Amino acid sequence: VNGALLGCGLVGGSFALALGDRVSFAGYDRSPENAARARERGIVSRVAESAASAVKDAELVVIAVPVRSTAEICEAIAPALSKSALVMDVGSTKSEVLTQVKRWLPFPERFVAAHPIAGTEKSGPDAASPDLFRGRRCLLSPLPETDREKLKLARELWEAAGARVDEIDAAHHDHALAFVSHLPHVAAFALASAVGEAAAKDSWLEGLSGGGFVDATRIAGSDPRMWRDVLLSNRDGVLEAMRALDEELAELRRAIAAGDGEKLEQLISRAGDGRKRVLRA
Amino acid sequence: VNGALLGCGLVGGSFALALGDRVSFAGYDRSPENAARARERGIVSRVAESAASAVKDAELVVIAVPVRSTAEICEAIAPALSKSALVMDVGSTKSEVLTQVKRWLPFPERFVAAHPIAGTEKSGPDAASPDLFRGRRCLLSPLPETDREKLKLARELWEAAGARVDEIDAAHHDHALAFVSHLPHVAAFALASAVGEAAAKDSWLEGLSGGGFVDATRIAGSDPRMWRDVLLSNRDGVLEAMRALDEELAELRRAIAAGDGEKLEQLISRAGDGRKRVLRA
Repeated sequence: VNGALLGCGLVGGSFALALGDRVSFAGYDRSPENAARARERGIVSRVAESAASAVKDAELVVIAVPVRSTAEICEAIAPALSKSALVMDVGSTKSEVLTQVKRWLPFPERFVAAHPIAGTEKSGPDAASPDLFRGRRCLLSPLPETDREKLKLARELWEAAGARVDEIDAAHHDHALAFVSHLPHVAAFALASAVGEAAAKDSWLEGLSGGGFVDATRIAGSDPRMWRDVLLSNRDGVLEAMRALDEELAELRRAIAAGDGEKLEQLISRAGDGRKRVLRA
Repeated sequence: VNGALLGCGLVGGSFALALGDRVSFAGYDRSPENAARARERGIVSRVAESAASAVKDAELVVIAVPVRSTAEICEAIAPALSKSALVMDVGSTKSEVLTQVKRWLPFPERFVAAHPIAGTEKSGPDAASPDLFRGRRCLLSPLPETDREKLKLARELWEAAGARVDEIDAAHHDHALAFVSHLPHVAAFALASAVGEAAAKDSWLEGLSGGGFVDATRIAGSDPRMWRDVLLSNRDGVLEAMRALDEELAELRRAIAAGDGEKLEQLISRAGDGRKRVLRA
């Protein structure tokens, strides 16, 4: 079956690799170098010159661009889209994406919003791996009008890619992800910048950190354009999660400033418990 | 040579294991189970019933307890301490420790404050490993009155344990570590608690996180008693670092709330650059 991969980066590239011979993808990327590299790595079978030309004859269209570019891509492919194609995205936020899909696609009922919870701080086609989704979760956010056959097909494709598939309403998705994914990124960005600034003022700090800083800020090296879009397209959820973080920081600050050891030990224990709950560990 | 290991946890235990046959340690721990386990693992050759009895005849005394227990340990061992012994700690903060040492030890000039920048989120004698310090840095914070022979010996011991040794003034140490180590822990505690609370309200969040949350909060599972002491004994430094984190969070919040994509992308790029600077990567 023919497919179109719009955006040949880490997530889209990994999905194409995971599907292997099932789908022969035409690839489009705003960066011609990325598209060419995806062709070299066998992620796509041919490079298309535009998103519209990529989707011609495609029965599976995968939109794997920064979430705020979804509207532009949908508008570009709408005239060329096969009437029977399944269209999917892989974005980290869902409500705004679905609004754009309903606005720009001629058959929004054949669109299935997908979010594989997998990624690394790396980006681009060279970071793509057929195993990225193995054992990871993939969330589908169907609309009431979503075609059941397309939804079933989307589920099968993600399962073929190794993911465990669940369905979740788009608004619920965005709220949940604001906490488990977007907030950790925001915290890592702020932490890396704060320590980076301190190191700029005092070079003694360079090379001084232990594994704690390394791990806590690993995701601070994530793709800025992708994360700009994620945070802006889930603004309310992210701001709510940030308020929760602020409150926790304020509690810690009060205990530290007051020298309240009992309270502080309790807050630290609570953090470990919270982590275990989230990880179901 | 005979030694005393006061506190048989991760760091003290790893140091004893790293020194191997060079030193035969008597071990004391406030938890008799920890001390017994350290004996079983060969970390110490015998268990002592008190800190004072452990240091009798010891030429090397290693204080490896939560930093705020240093005073109590110093007071306890002072009467029994050999006049020629090198006494070292391994704590994560230095100024307060040195104040306590000067107050309680009869020969503070034979004390060398040491801080190996190594650790994991695990704790206790079972987590100890002879390789914990291999290739890691160890900071010594000598006082003007510190005996040069003892300082040299301390350096040799840490180098024998595999560490790269540097000297740094205690106040400078505490300020630097507030940023590269203590702040990452505070941020991880707050993040794990914020997401943990959200998961307590919405069980959908459980098991939903990707690798970002896992890494960003790994150190949130650190020993609460140890970290309570670290944060309280470096209060001013930690509060200063927390203010820097607050400012970075506020900048991110403003850009997100205003929908300012250009600014947000710039802040995220800056975070990645800051991380590289700190890691000298």
